[in-house]
Amino acid sequence: MPLSKEQKKEIQEQQAQENKTKRVTSPELEKILYEAIPVLDHGFVRVVDYMGDDSSIVQSARVSYGKGTKKVSTDSGLIKYLMRHRHSTPFEMCEIKYHVKLPIFIARQWIRHRTANVNEYSARYSILDKEFYMPTKDHLAAQSTINRQGRGDLIDGKQADEILNILKKDAEQTYDNYELMLNERFDGTTINKNNKGLARELARMNLTLNTYTQWYWKTDLLNLLNFLSLRADSHAQYEIRAYADVMTNSLKKWVPITFDAFMDYRVGGMELSAKGKSVIEKMIKGENCNFESSNLSKREWNELMDSFGFKEKIL
Amino acid sequence: MPLSKEQKKEIQEQQAQENKTKRVTSPELEKILYEAIPVLDHGFVRVVDYMGDDSSIVQSARVSYGKGTKKVSTDSGLIKYLMRHRHSTPFEMCEIKYHVKLPIFIARQWIRHRTANVNEYSARYSILDKEFYMPTKDHLAAQSTINRQGRGDLIDGKQADEILNILKKDAEQTYDNYELMLNERFDGTTINKNNKGLARELARMNLTLNTYTQWYWKTDLLNLLNFLSLRADSHAQYEIRAYADVMTNSLKKWVPITFDAFMDYRVGGMELSAKGKSVIEKMIKGENCNFESSNLSKREWNELMDSFGFKEKIL
Amino acid sequence: MPLSKEQKKEIQEQQAQENKTKRVTSPELEKILYEAIPVLDHGFVRVVDYMGDDSSIVQSARVSYGKGTKKVSTDSGLIKYLMRHRHSTPFEMCEIKYHVKLPIFIARQWIRHRTANVNEYSARYSILDKEFYMPTKDHLAAQSTINRQGRGDLIDGKQADEILNILKKDAEQTYDNYELMLNERFDGTTINKNNKGLARELARMNLTLNTYTQWYWKTDLLNLLNFLSLRADSHAQYEIRAYADVMTNSLKKWVPITFDAFMDYRVGGMELSAKGKSVIEKMIKGENCNFESSNLSKREWNELMDSFGFKEKIL
Amino acid sequence: MPLSKEQKKEIQEQQAQENKTKRVTSPELEKILYEAIPVLDHGFVRVVDYMGDDSSIVQSARVSYGKGTKKVSTDSGLIKYLMRHRHSTPFEMCEIKYHVKLPIFIARQWIRHRTANVNEYSARYSILDKEFYMPTKDHLAAQSTINRQGRGDLIDGKQADEILNILKKDAEQTYDNYELMLNERFDGTTINKNNKGLARELARMNLTLNTYTQWYWKTDLLNLLNFLSLRADSHAQYEIRAYADVMTNSLKKWVPITFDAFMDYRVGGMELSAKGKSVIEKMIKGENCNFESSNLSKREWNELMDSFGFKEKIL
Repeated sequence: MPLSKEQKKEIQEQQAQENKTKRVTSPELEKILYEAIPVLDHGFVRVVDYMGDDSSIVQSARVSYGKGTKKVSTDSGLIKYLMRHRHSTPFEMCEIKYHVKLPIFIARQWIRHRTANVNEYSARYSILDKEFYMPTKDHLAAQSTINRQGRGDLIDGKQADEILNILKKDAEQTYDNYELMLNERFDGTTINKNNKGLARELARMNLTLNTYTQWYWKTDLLNLLNFLSLRADSHAQYEIRAYADVMTNSLKKWVPITFDAFMDYRVGGMELSAKGKSVIEKMIKGENCNFESSNLSKREWNELMDSFGFKEKIL
Repeated sequence: MPLSKEQKKEIQEQQAQENKTKRVTSPELEKILYEAIPVLDHGFVRVVDYMGDDSSIVQSARVSYGKGTKKVSTDSGLIKYLMRHRHSTPFEMCEIKYHVKLPIFIARQWIRHRTANVNEYSARYSILDKEFYMPTKDHLAAQSTINRQGRGDLIDGKQADEILNILKKDAEQTYDNYELMLNERFDGTTINKNNKGLARELARMNLTLNTYTQWYWKTDLLNLLNFLSLRADSHAQYEIRAYADVMTNSLKKWVPITFDAFMDYRVGGMELSAKGKSVIEKMIKGENCNFESSNLSKREWNELMDSFGFKEKIL
Repeated sequence: MPLSKEQKKEIQEQQAQENKTKRVTSPELEKILYEAIPVLDHGFVRVVDYMGDDSSIVQSARVSYGKGTKKVSTDSGLIKYLMRHRHSTPFEMCEIKYHVKLPIFIARQWIRHRTANVNEYSARYSILDKEFYMPTKDHLAAQSTINRQGRGDLIDGKQADEILNILKKDAEQTYDNYELMLNERFDGTTINKNNKGLARELARMNLTLNTYTQWYWKTDLLNLLNFLSLRADSHAQYEIRAYADVMTNSLKKWVPITFDAFMDYRVGGMELSAKGKSVIEKMIKGENCNFESSNLSKREWNELMDSFGFKEKIL
Repeated sequence: MPLSKEQKKEIQEQQAQENKTKRVTSPELEKILYEAIPVLDHGFVRVVDYMGDDSSIVQSARVSYGKGTKKVSTDSGLIKYLMRHRHSTPFEMCEIKYHVKLPIFIARQWIRHRTANVNEYSARYSILDKEFYMPTKDHLAAQSTINRQGRGDLIDGKQADEILNILKKDAEQTYDNYELMLNERFDGTTINKNNKGLARELARMNLTLNTYTQWYWKTDLLNLLNFLSLRADSHAQYEIRAYADVMTNSLKKWVPITFDAFMDYRVGGMELSAKGKSVIEKMIKGENCNFESSNLSKREWNELMDSFGFKEKIL
């Protein structure tokens, strides 16, 4: 992720700002504002703006509940209560904006979260950088044999080298041909002055899906939590999780009380179905309880046992 | 709109803040931040937070268009271009939050704009204030005879007095009975210690629609413009227009370049249908052109002539 | 809910349709299509259109997962899997449209669910019917003393009569004055031919919040489930729950497999926080576990014990 | 677009359905329901479900306006009125669902329309088909020299052959390597039984952006019109316009009255800014009017003259 001189200068100028405001500020988040935090081999996440902090959630909740909320003694108690009971609208009162550089195949997962505002670099207008995502060897995993959308064992040795070699060679070749069709290199020089350049909106189709793109992505706190609970989860693809982890860290700096509640009620929490709950009840009471009498499917039984760490009970 | 002592103190404390931030600020908007600007007889609009300014729109547009946008020489030129061509996503990159006090029947119009975040005072939890909207005599208009959703001539004299008298008497009586059913006055004192108080979620049903409520309402700049273009329009009901006018003023302070473009392209602009355009073309060329040959309905013809101020041509 | 002759005729005509279609149909839902199912004293819920059935969820999920889904043997298994893992987008592929008549104070709760399409009867254009919600005595409850937004014991005897009397009298009086200000009765007759009628958009402000309104409300299946899980819940206000219950019944007819999964995973299910899960783990293992060592707040402890029915452990 | 035998059979079965329904139907749309209409070289658009027709718009508008709308004599008049005055919510009462096969770089443009429901084929789960978009020679255009996001003259002769050769070769090579890394061919056969297969979620990154994907895409009529007015426009990229054109045709079959109003007020219509309107007023009155006195930028002046076809006035 070598930022260009231009980019570094822009970031330094942004960070050098010292404006006065009557708005609430989040001092820990201010410390990393505008900073390009590296993700994967060429990507980054930058917080470029925000609105509100933990107190904004409390403020709007107290408007909703009027005098009624005065009895909840602390801000922390109120935020936990709101999170626990999924009173979601007060969390929509905070907003954050990220500048993200990421591979296109990850951008395609990400964009499925629709309640956000996005401005992406347009390859209709401009030429994309020559930067591709290359997994490191410790993430080069085989298809899982038990989970159709997961990864299994690492691939190593000669096969790993071959795969990395393919990825590198194909990305470079398709990019070189992208330039050739554009009849223009990224630095603006013409390749063959007797040729026309293919329209950018067409030439881009030759690029591979690990090419990096970038965008501004803005969302409210509630939808950020939804995004993180799905994408910082162990079932998420490693490459998007790498972004979600950095963003979770910015969440902690921004709204520390909400972060704690989020970790307790969402990230570390779980859901029980009616049938699952009935199994747990029996287990607590020490009643006889096994798969056969549980009314659960084998898969549900295993998921339930697994979430409580009862390894011996998994079928 | 006599703010309570408590409210005044809260506003003063908010305004006394002097925080440092690396975020962009909007100096003119900062000057009125938190201020309760009176609307109607008991309502107000307060800007309580914001994110971004004109430069944020430009910043995200330049990410989209990459090096391509460098040729548009000025921020103002770019914002006008975006507005003219309805490139709407960069305008979503700014966000604003209002605290609004407004009559319930206006809140019901307002809430139809769904792309916004809302926390409203809850009459399930708390007791509503004894405040009702009473129109002034210069807004006490008769039903329009030509427009099913508009106002016609003013009602004056004795009938006006009677109407105002009804509105006042009914609002007060229903509120007094609201307290009676709650068995509790707004100040918290019990009315009859031998009685129970009816659940708040039920008692509220006795209130009239001109009772004031309040909410926090947060939206992005694009959706604010959509709201204002509909609600600051002459066809909007006067009472919501009064709010939209105050908010249009805050728009001007917040994002002055966007404001200018909005006035030129939206507020002062108009739409032509294909058929309408063809009429205008003929008129410019000095060709014979009248209602009969226009292919327009009478209503369309009149609307078109009216928008160009050709009063003599209206049927 | 005496439907007018006109309305009855319209419903009969709609129900008499026998159109041919290549679209999937939901035979059980067809049976009640257009029928006005009574809710509260004057309200109703009518299913007026729908798109898709259980098979539509499966169809779109199989597009997502491609050949991968063929291994899930049954539609039912797949729908349960999607519900359990909150793979939500396939549930958005079904759509339903209701025609609802409901009191205004309930409409104001309902409209907070923003991901839906709404067309409401406009009191700017037209005159509202003289119909108000009056609770029956078995729902006339006092404010809860333990829950700020709940109901406690019933109010009965003389106080109940007084309350019902107030509600009736105030609603009738404000409606009569509404007509007086409009200078027009609901049947269109003029009251005083020497007077003007106040603009409808103004006169409506005199009505009480238990006046009935009506709307078309259209949403996708995912958002319907979200609505029902909140509004058919025991914590919801009785009056909106009455609507949600009728709609839950239409859900069962429309998409019976999804209905079963919804009952198991959402309605009958629960969420455990990280701390709560750790308490449950100890209890299952028979380890010593009490409030003091639980890290939970008193409120959380009680909610947890309550959800498993351990009444003796509630503090 | 050679559909597989399986796909053809599925479509035939869907089209052979003859269900009875009390819902409104759109007879012309029924005729093409499920049919895979070819777009580009391997893509298609299929209407797979719909809800409502022109009468549904009228129905919900009449609920809004109550008795007030009875005076608008015809459905067509009412729909035109709604379109002209941007009364948008009645158009949200109809819904349509498409099954679309399209190149990934087009899918990335399309997905920017967020108010829609989407289920896309997942390359995390399954292996993508070996199908790539190859432009025909009559669409192989050079970058426009006047518009940064447009196409200019065609590229022909030897350079065209070279470009098509590159596109074909690179797509095939990257796909072959995709299979190699997966260690599995699309038909499920293993390539090298001593190797593991790379996880699908990783291997896909080697594919080029012209690889075809497919999805179910469902939206309401209002948002479909917004999509079509942008994407069937001459400024849209040809490849997405090809889809929008087919969908515009389905619009005409589905809701013919709305289609006419859309063509008149949106597609064939235009917007005038306040300044532009003032220019037009002068021109109609025969007053002296030129660029210098117009207050317009050169670009705005040219756009305005161009839209009225006044070629001699363009600077």
